[in-house]
Amino acid sequence: MRKKENVMANIAGRPRLEKLTHLGRGRLEKLYRMFYENGPGEGTFLSLPFDQLVEHGAAHTFKWQKEDVTNIDITGRGSADPRTVIELANKGNFSAIVLHPGIIDKYQDLLRLNIPLIYKADGHMTIPQNPPIASTIGSVKDALRLGAAAVGMSFYPGSEMTREDMARIGSIIREAHTYGMPAVVWAYARGPDVNEMGADSLYWVHYACVVAESLGADIIKTKFPAPVKTEKREAYLNYLKKIAKKTSGAEKYIELEPEKDEELTEKQHTHRMKLVVDAVPRSFVIVSGGPKIRGDPRKELAYTTRIVVNAGAEGRIIGRNFWGVPINKGLEYANIVAEIMREPQYHRPFKHVPA
Amino acid sequence: MRKKENVMANIAGRPRLEKLTHLGRGRLEKLYRMFYENGPGEGTFLSLPFDQLVEHGAAHTFKWQKEDVTNIDITGRGSADPRTVIELANKGNFSAIVLHPGIIDKYQDLLRLNIPLIYKADGHMTIPQNPPIASTIGSVKDALRLGAAAVGMSFYPGSEMTREDMARIGSIIREAHTYGMPAVVWAYARGPDVNEMGADSLYWVHYACVVAESLGADIIKTKFPAPVKTEKREAYLNYLKKIAKKTSGAEKYIELEPEKDEELTEKQHTHRMKLVVDAVPRSFVIVSGGPKIRGDPRKELAYTTRIVVNAGAEGRIIGRNFWGVPINKGLEYANIVAEIMREPQYHRPFKHVPA
Amino acid sequence: MRKKENVMANIAGRPRLEKLTHLGRGRLEKLYRMFYENGPGEGTFLSLPFDQLVEHGAAHTFKWQKEDVTNIDITGRGSADPRTVIELANKGNFSAIVLHPGIIDKYQDLLRLNIPLIYKADGHMTIPQNPPIASTIGSVKDALRLGAAAVGMSFYPGSEMTREDMARIGSIIREAHTYGMPAVVWAYARGPDVNEMGADSLYWVHYACVVAESLGADIIKTKFPAPVKTEKREAYLNYLKKIAKKTSGAEKYIELEPEKDEELTEKQHTHRMKLVVDAVPRSFVIVSGGPKIRGDPRKELAYTTRIVVNAGAEGRIIGRNFWGVPINKGLEYANIVAEIMREPQYHRPFKHVPA
Amino acid sequence: MRKKENVMANIAGRPRLEKLTHLGRGRLEKLYRMFYENGPGEGTFLSLPFDQLVEHGAAHTFKWQKEDVTNIDITGRGSADPRTVIELANKGNFSAIVLHPGIIDKYQDLLRLNIPLIYKADGHMTIPQNPPIASTIGSVKDALRLGAAAVGMSFYPGSEMTREDMARIGSIIREAHTYGMPAVVWAYARGPDVNEMGADSLYWVHYACVVAESLGADIIKTKFPAPVKTEKREAYLNYLKKIAKKTSGAEKYIELEPEKDEELTEKQHTHRMKLVVDAVPRSFVIVSGGPKIRGDPRKELAYTTRIVVNAGAEGRIIGRNFWGVPINKGLEYANIVAEIMREPQYHRPFKHVPA
Amino acid sequence: MRKKENVMANIAGRPRLEKLTHLGRGRLEKLYRMFYENGPGEGTFLSLPFDQLVEHGAAHTFKWQKEDVTNIDITGRGSADPRTVIELANKGNFSAIVLHPGIIDKYQDLLRLNIPLIYKADGHMTIPQNPPIASTIGSVKDALRLGAAAVGMSFYPGSEMTREDMARIGSIIREAHTYGMPAVVWAYARGPDVNEMGADSLYWVHYACVVAESLGADIIKTKFPAPVKTEKREAYLNYLKKIAKKTSGAEKYIELEPEKDEELTEKQHTHRMKLVVDAVPRSFVIVSGGPKIRGDPRKELAYTTRIVVNAGAEGRIIGRNFWGVPINKGLEYANIVAEIMREPQYHRPFKHVPA
Repeated sequence: MRKKENVMANIAGRPRLEKLTHLGRGRLEKLYRMFYENGPGEGTFLSLPFDQLVEHGAAHTFKWQKEDVTNIDITGRGSADPRTVIELANKGNFSAIVLHPGIIDKYQDLLRLNIPLIYKADGHMTIPQNPPIASTIGSVKDALRLGAAAVGMSFYPGSEMTREDMARIGSIIREAHTYGMPAVVWAYARGPDVNEMGADSLYWVHYACVVAESLGADIIKTKFPAPVKTEKREAYLNYLKKIAKKTSGAEKYIELEPEKDEELTEKQHTHRMKLVVDAVPRSFVIVSGGPKIRGDPRKELAYTTRIVVNAGAEGRIIGRNFWGVPINKGLEYANIVAEIMREPQYHRPFKHVPA
Repeated sequence: MRKKENVMANIAGRPRLEKLTHLGRGRLEKLYRMFYENGPGEGTFLSLPFDQLVEHGAAHTFKWQKEDVTNIDITGRGSADPRTVIELANKGNFSAIVLHPGIIDKYQDLLRLNIPLIYKADGHMTIPQNPPIASTIGSVKDALRLGAAAVGMSFYPGSEMTREDMARIGSIIREAHTYGMPAVVWAYARGPDVNEMGADSLYWVHYACVVAESLGADIIKTKFPAPVKTEKREAYLNYLKKIAKKTSGAEKYIELEPEKDEELTEKQHTHRMKLVVDAVPRSFVIVSGGPKIRGDPRKELAYTTRIVVNAGAEGRIIGRNFWGVPINKGLEYANIVAEIMREPQYHRPFKHVPA
Repeated sequence: MRKKENVMANIAGRPRLEKLTHLGRGRLEKLYRMFYENGPGEGTFLSLPFDQLVEHGAAHTFKWQKEDVTNIDITGRGSADPRTVIELANKGNFSAIVLHPGIIDKYQDLLRLNIPLIYKADGHMTIPQNPPIASTIGSVKDALRLGAAAVGMSFYPGSEMTREDMARIGSIIREAHTYGMPAVVWAYARGPDVNEMGADSLYWVHYACVVAESLGADIIKTKFPAPVKTEKREAYLNYLKKIAKKTSGAEKYIELEPEKDEELTEKQHTHRMKLVVDAVPRSFVIVSGGPKIRGDPRKELAYTTRIVVNAGAEGRIIGRNFWGVPINKGLEYANIVAEIMREPQYHRPFKHVPA
Repeated sequence: MRKKENVMANIAGRPRLEKLTHLGRGRLEKLYRMFYENGPGEGTFLSLPFDQLVEHGAAHTFKWQKEDVTNIDITGRGSADPRTVIELANKGNFSAIVLHPGIIDKYQDLLRLNIPLIYKADGHMTIPQNPPIASTIGSVKDALRLGAAAVGMSFYPGSEMTREDMARIGSIIREAHTYGMPAVVWAYARGPDVNEMGADSLYWVHYACVVAESLGADIIKTKFPAPVKTEKREAYLNYLKKIAKKTSGAEKYIELEPEKDEELTEKQHTHRMKLVVDAVPRSFVIVSGGPKIRGDPRKELAYTTRIVVNAGAEGRIIGRNFWGVPINKGLEYANIVAEIMREPQYHRPFKHVPA
Repeated sequence: MRKKENVMANIAGRPRLEKLTHLGRGRLEKLYRMFYENGPGEGTFLSLPFDQLVEHGAAHTFKWQKEDVTNIDITGRGSADPRTVIELANKGNFSAIVLHPGIIDKYQDLLRLNIPLIYKADGHMTIPQNPPIASTIGSVKDALRLGAAAVGMSFYPGSEMTREDMARIGSIIREAHTYGMPAVVWAYARGPDVNEMGADSLYWVHYACVVAESLGADIIKTKFPAPVKTEKREAYLNYLKKIAKKTSGAEKYIELEPEKDEELTEKQHTHRMKLVVDAVPRSFVIVSGGPKIRGDPRKELAYTTRIVVNAGAEGRIIGRNFWGVPINKGLEYANIVAEIMREPQYHRPFKHVPA
């Protein structure tokens, strides 16, 4: 009972699309398609990203060859084949699919016309010593031409490229909004110093999100804030102490970390997630990742999703867990996540304002 | 009595909006709104900046959890929540509120329409080893669209990025002026060498201000010039000696520093502040910070404000002391500052020229 | 009592600025200045236009020579001297003053900085056989530079130039909105055929207004719909019949006209005005002119204003009756109109939305 | 004595360059060169226009062949040869010379570098049935390239082309002002109906001037308002009566016309001129033409100039009377005009504001 | 006598404005104002630069506090106050004043309208480790708007930024020339290697000047070539030898340097200066600095000026020696320099070409 009240309070602090009329109909109608007309709906969100060929490499195309897979209907086609991912999207019910410009351009004929499309306008290859900043490889105009429902960009604060990255993303968002196009920002800290203390730690996840909102992101893709590993704890703590000299309160973050060898409880996870979500009350938050749990991936997806939505976040964005398995399984897994989101306590009803 | 004469002399050397008709009505009417129609008025200025989520991080959202706070009307919402800061601005009487582009875009519906808005077009995250130069994340056109009364930029001279920073800011100011939009420049020295000798020392504060005026700033946001700390005194002195070889007079700065372990008197502080203000006779100067004094923040705000306005500066810009506390207190503190500015000796009357 | 209910109903159907957040803060804050911070306020409007030198000719500069005027402070300066009109505006309390580009450019130093300025971007001289379409003589960028609160254009549907006029105005409005600048459209029918049947007749006034809203006008300046004169009645009726073949209902307009030699009652006038106002529920309507009544202009202004505001219109725009007389009288007359608008039943309260 | 007071009053109502700082230094420094550093100076103006080859035709090149001219130093070269006109300008002391783009481009090497140059950006040939609207043949950028002190345009209100003409000129003025370039507008009524009633009549001269100021002209070139000829008096009167229905006061113009066969007195001329000048209190007025008087052109120039400057106009622009005669005579005539302007009562002192 | 002939020969090799008609009237008329209508005139040049607040810092504002100064009219206003420098310019007779964009924008109302204005479009702060390249902070369009007679840029060849600097300056010059605006290039070598061997040595001064002319500078501001100091002689020589392998003759520079502890004679200085001036026969050369001599600054100014003009250079540009002292003294010193330039042997008469 206590929990339900908390969930209600968490959701009460979240943005309501119906009240954001000042964003203009162009952005609203696209957001509406993603949050109300596709996927789990009622203001929740579940999307299928497929930008990992650029981000991680072609090895993804080996995906199904490691497993005993029987009912693949297109011979030789692995799960990271764009056609397979699109087939999954077509058969499923996602709030949106995320694709890179060239993929959209070439495979557009295969994509169901009523799937909201997030045009991922930048990318970043896994390459040694590559500074953590994505390349802008698309354009807002191209996204319009291809019927996108949003443009997406990756923001990697934490390195010496942060300044350039902020300027790059700010500029795309300004242009996107001019054309009535919402912006989705993947916001993660990255960079040598940051990695040392835990780039996905609560401090950095939290920080990346508030900056993304200040840049103008309509949707923020964040990571499930990870507990600081024992070997990084000291670096993290030292940094927080340094920061706290100027920004009182920063030292509080350490209290939210587990003691050595401890695991966080669901309640603790939810509290941490809620802090992140709370910090951006006018941006929709979608979450990837989460703590690994043993056994069935179904359980892990359910467990992390429950935390995410209880904390007030609008939804999730899940890639390899969906498209890295045979389509049937991907659909099944996606449904597990969507079912949770469809529970009434997570609804954000949208009533058209009477004139 | 002696003091009053000094104050009068200090203010006599300051810019008078009514004489700046050559700036054109676009800039003047916006400056008028800030200096005469809102805040303490009569040519004085008190503004509420809220760009610290980007500048310092999300830890600010913890603010109220440190205290026993009872009368917060939105559960769980900390003082660094944009909605709370906007509520403070709406209830108070500030000359302007400062916000980042994404925040204005998303929260514009909450903001009182008659609060002058400074659109902070750039930002800089606190990140290890990040060079001190802000990213341009907004645009003059976006500021116009959102009904801003000015665009703001941070200028951080002192590092190897200075050249780029000057060009960046000069270019935005030129564009802003074309559209009748005033420019506010946050001018602080930053950079490895500069930090070593005291980035907020009188020499650097002074220098940053004259460059900001040369770039075309209509309003200069400066820091209260800080006494050079004992451990930095040598570096400071050495630098001044080096400079004095080319710029005779530079060695004088050291005479304005306290001897070891001494505290500056109010008179000394005022003299230092006056030097800064005097150096930019056609830019309005607003000041943040000031020496910490023990005890009640009310006393500290009153003490530093008195110095600032006695020195001839137009006003202040105060963030965390206002929004980092519960709204009632923030309003009370702002009123303490405003009351001082409203004293008749600080007025800059504006008489419309007879036809 | 019956009447009060009607007035309440009429006003209930009108736009409320506080609900138009989707227009964006740029337009809203400028509309707010005109409808709430200047003039009679509370959502009403009274403005002083001075574009008549272009529209009607320099004979206006003779204005005061017909009368025994003593207290003019610059000898020989008539009431149509821009300096005199600006003096009137400075001394009065108008929602806005309307001026042409060259006048603003040259006299900007005389204008109170807190008077909202409508930059009249086009003009049309009284010249024989000149087609009824205004020339664009200004630009949105120039309006921004000069600190305008709106751009104004005249729309003269009814001639062969209508097509060009619609395109011209549509284009300026689109650009103005991009920069957060509201658009005021003076909408009157003009043209040989239209004049023949009464250009200011209800049919044409009504039609011009709905087109102006369709073009995107934020404020529509319309004329008090004039009863069709006896000699034009037949042409009017024939035209309505023709129209009615395609647009059933058009024939009804004739029922709203007086029989020969009759005068309309106040109630009839109000009903006609209300039809016009009702047709544009999201544009603010301001009205010029009205039926001449014998005797004191004070009475006429009060009489027509009462009709206008009872019908639900937001306000009035009155030129020669204000600036065509000595300043004292102009102020007195303006006050008569403003006093009516200030009555509580005409208020449109603006409450800032709670966060 | 009475007269002197009038002159003082007339001049008191005129623009003072030193008070027009809001126009910006670009325009001011060029106006200063013309009104203070060249020609008769002290705020007065005498310029030499040479655009008549385009306006009137090549017959002008016959000028000196009709007369017994002895001391022409370049054989065969008539007075309308650009080289001769430039020689006159070089030897004289004019506030400015007016030339067409091609002439400036080709003869620039001959022109004294310190003569202010008015780049006449448009022209109009004398051709049967040609509508009265000038062609834009130059550009602001070209004027800048050639070192012009102003751009000039002809505005011919009165025909069906008026709309296009206003738009054309408004657009050039907006651009010129952006580059700190003053605009000179030749404002005369032209067109079939207008010609019928006297295009240079007081009504039309007066009207053209106020529109030119509304368009943004810095300098207005007007014609000496001509008495309406007996054969046009009826058309003029009828038109005024028509106008007076809408613009009360217009009927007054007829009172300023002479009765049949009467000549106007100097006092009457001055009063009429003053009405024109008074109507544009922030534009400098320069006048061409004037009533023909018998005998010596010296007397005529002195007579008309006296009227012009007594009425408060800043100066004159005289073409054929100067360049249509041998250079010696042209210089002599120009000097007669300049001497009058140099009389102390016509001075507009310019004092640089103390810091 | 020998000397006079030399001077005549030196001047004979210099550019003559009257022969540079191919530069176009826009550039010529502005150069004419600077070289013939203001300052010492007759083709000579003496200008007052005030960009040192940016270049050297705010310590300049302490200037007068070192001295017993009585007749300063605004208490506490030092000599580096823009208002004081402008007062000096207004009272003096300089060929031009040099100011930064923001200073011109803000103080334009104080500046005499007939002082040629050099708009310094870039600037460079004194900051440790800052690379020697100026930031472009202004624009050609802004210079036009503010009525500039030239745009100025600093060119600092000698570091790794040289490539970027050449491109930057080349681009501004190309644009300036398009608008008929002359370009002034401050050309000095700077950079680690260059400093080591003497950045102001003859080799580098010489080189910087020829590159500036190749970039298109109309006026080149160079430094008085300084003798190579004993401790740098070896580095200089080695560098010359290296260069001489490709550029035979380079080794000759060493012959123009003094032996250890020697001082150069006036004749030697003149010869060195002449080499520099000779190398750019179509760019006007103005010189700052010069060898320090003991005693009265009047003597030093006279001594160095004599060398400069005997060598054929057009003039000088002197800042702190003029504005760093009380106005009376500044005027006196400027007059000493101007008097020398006014001597007939330095005149470059400008005769307008006969038609």
